[in-house]
Amino acid sequence: MTWRVHVRILPRKGLLDPQGQAVEHALSALRFPEASNVHVGKAIALDVSAGTAAEAEARVRTICDQLLANPVTEDFEIEVAAGASP
Amino acid sequence: MTWRVHVRILPRKGLLDPQGQAVEHALSALRFPEASNVHVGKAIALDVSAGTAAEAEARVRTICDQLLANPVTEDFEIEVAAGASP
Repeated sequence: MTWRVHVRILPRKGLLDPQGQAVEHALSALRFPEASNVHVGKAIALDVSAGTAAEAEARVRTICDQLLANPVTEDFEIEVAAGASP
Repeated sequence: MTWRVHVRILPRKGLLDPQGQAVEHALSALRFPEASNVHVGKAIALDVSAGTAAEAEARVRTICDQLLANPVTEDFEIEVAAGASP
């Protein structure tokens, strides 16, 4: 079975996020002052072959730990899409 | 009230996504052949002041349409976090 998995990788809290700050300042200057605490990171979507959703998530967690996310500066969240395609 | 909103911006389907292809090839070469159809985009998290979750989402949709996403090449999804902070 194939699962669609979404990963969100964001700078760890407390670390500098110049890209997020730049977006926040730009939004504030461009008529959107209600946005604050902006952070910018990476979104990754992938299909994973696995028996169960839990297996797919575990596999993607391993991938993120080892390859996709920087363990020193980034945190990530994994979301397995409910409607997995066959 | 302040809502935590997550935005996921990904290359539109059918368009070239060289970064996604690079990650897919790297994963395949690095002992993760079960990953396929990989796409890489931007994850943005922000706090939005709004009366309701629907208002917050509408506001972020406007921001994405006008500023954060490229309407020609990118699609985005908005998710208002249930547990909004005060």
